[in-house]
Amino acid sequence: MSLGEFELIERYFRRPAEARRAARGDVPLGIGDDSAVLALPPGRHLVAALDTLVEGRHFVPGSPPESIGHRALAVNLSDLAAMGAEPAWFLLSLTLPSSDEIFLERFARGLFALAERHGVALVGGDTTAGPLAVAVQALGSIEPGQALTRAGGRAGDLVYVSGTPGDAAGGLKLVLDAAAGDELDEAHRQWLWDRFHFPTPRVELGRALRGIASACVDVSDGLAGDAARMARFSGCGLRLDAGRVPVSPALVALAGAEGARRIALTGGEDCELCFTVPPSRAAALEALLDNVKCPVTCIGELTDGAGIELTGKGAPLDIDAGGFDHFA
Amino acid sequence: MSLGEFELIERYFRRPAEARRAARGDVPLGIGDDSAVLALPPGRHLVAALDTLVEGRHFVPGSPPESIGHRALAVNLSDLAAMGAEPAWFLLSLTLPSSDEIFLERFARGLFALAERHGVALVGGDTTAGPLAVAVQALGSIEPGQALTRAGGRAGDLVYVSGTPGDAAGGLKLVLDAAAGDELDEAHRQWLWDRFHFPTPRVELGRALRGIASACVDVSDGLAGDAARMARFSGCGLRLDAGRVPVSPALVALAGAEGARRIALTGGEDCELCFTVPPSRAAALEALLDNVKCPVTCIGELTDGAGIELTGKGAPLDIDAGGFDHFA
Repeated sequence: MSLGEFELIERYFRRPAEARRAARGDVPLGIGDDSAVLALPPGRHLVAALDTLVEGRHFVPGSPPESIGHRALAVNLSDLAAMGAEPAWFLLSLTLPSSDEIFLERFARGLFALAERHGVALVGGDTTAGPLAVAVQALGSIEPGQALTRAGGRAGDLVYVSGTPGDAAGGLKLVLDAAAGDELDEAHRQWLWDRFHFPTPRVELGRALRGIASACVDVSDGLAGDAARMARFSGCGLRLDAGRVPVSPALVALAGAEGARRIALTGGEDCELCFTVPPSRAAALEALLDNVKCPVTCIGELTDGAGIELTGKGAPLDIDAGGFDHFA
Repeated sequence: MSLGEFELIERYFRRPAEARRAARGDVPLGIGDDSAVLALPPGRHLVAALDTLVEGRHFVPGSPPESIGHRALAVNLSDLAAMGAEPAWFLLSLTLPSSDEIFLERFARGLFALAERHGVALVGGDTTAGPLAVAVQALGSIEPGQALTRAGGRAGDLVYVSGTPGDAAGGLKLVLDAAAGDELDEAHRQWLWDRFHFPTPRVELGRALRGIASACVDVSDGLAGDAARMARFSGCGLRLDAGRVPVSPALVALAGAEGARRIALTGGEDCELCFTVPPSRAAALEALLDNVKCPVTCIGELTDGAGIELTGKGAPLDIDAGGFDHFA
């Protein structure tokens, strides 16, 4: 027991019974017992992800607590989205140096704002005293055989990415070096700041991709490295066209066109999806995008063999940082 | 990405495919993708627990890595045991200051020795650089309506505890103060050391208690406090007979009879179960104990009202530490 754990849970993390019941009818036993008891929809498989954010590694000391709460859940919802799963519940393990009420209130606000947007319920977890870290375990479900793995791609499949990758890394650059954005206008600065602090897990897109995408990964470690890993798991090579990688105007304003593409290919902390689609289903993808409010861009294709090839308008980019070189 | 995460997972945490398949046939997709996909037995509810061990809080720097691996899983299996659940899978989030191969090998050895004993499979998680901490998420299943909650007790129900509580706290005392056990013989010292470093989650007992116990909790925060909490959730008072609290000869050798009882009532870190049984089912409990190799002892009863009463052979114990006073 630590920090008056029970009082802390009651005050900040236990939603009123009515709100919890209204939100989900599939939690026979939620917060407050040794474990949560959960009713998975009949005939579906369970999908589970566990990711931890650590101060100094995933966020800098003094980060807005709302952002820490949001991101701890977002990265896990993103892991579920990458499988095409329907998120349902989550557990929270919070390690805190001290029982700071202002931190807790703001942390809970960021956490629950995202949870409510996706209709997921906090059903358990623990709190401990120690260096600030947040582990979230997200649980969801999927029809058997429908999960989007990273191993399902085939040579010739088109490679897509959602959103504008690199924005989170651009936002982090602003956080770490206030002078970096001196010449940015306020809208661009705000855009990058938001994409780092409040990334959008692509839950609806992931669900919509079932039956269309052949493979899918969460781009949290850098687009090029994650795409290469998906290709490798699929037993394929990869050809990426750097010139087609979508970059936001804000990232270009921060780093120039060339720099923005490099950041988009190697930066981490995005919650975007990278996925492959057989050419025969490209039209089906276009059709579903009318319903899913999330831009996606074709950036290359899977190839025969195991080579990783990066093409571009001019000379090949000099990718020397991030995850990419581990797999080149 | 951190610490060569993929290489680390491959080397230490990915069991050979044959071993995994032999162990469980209900893991359509395990370690290596964004999330795990798991097949819950039809008609059963999911049971989920998430607990974190933090260096300096739950274990001292320099602890045997095997013990850290064991305990991180044990406390979560204990949470599942307290519900009467059947454990099936777990996820691991490991935060490490550096990629220490000797630590990792020993940690994995302790973790998997316990996992294999209970037939639970590691199916996912992550690794991160940061202050040493281990979050484990345990998943299991139970028949709907069969979960042992902490709220099911009624006045007149008998209160039991498994094993000899306080031994983990006694072992911790030896760890923190080498001189504390100067006069202990080696067998007693070893017993207490083992009970702290390698506590036994009472999984079989928890399962056997379904249909017999009316309420159950995991005694991880001190027997008296956890029993009082169970009484409170059950809307009852509690009468505990301190003289009946089982204490090990080793704990008595360490702290004397009076001191041993105090440690048993207030010490933390045990993985024992405290549970209530209606008098009408006491005979059924005795019968099942022949099959479950785990001693249990009746130590009191739930009472009308909300009072917490501690009786004993002599004067009432002076319980002034641990969880108990929060609820007195």
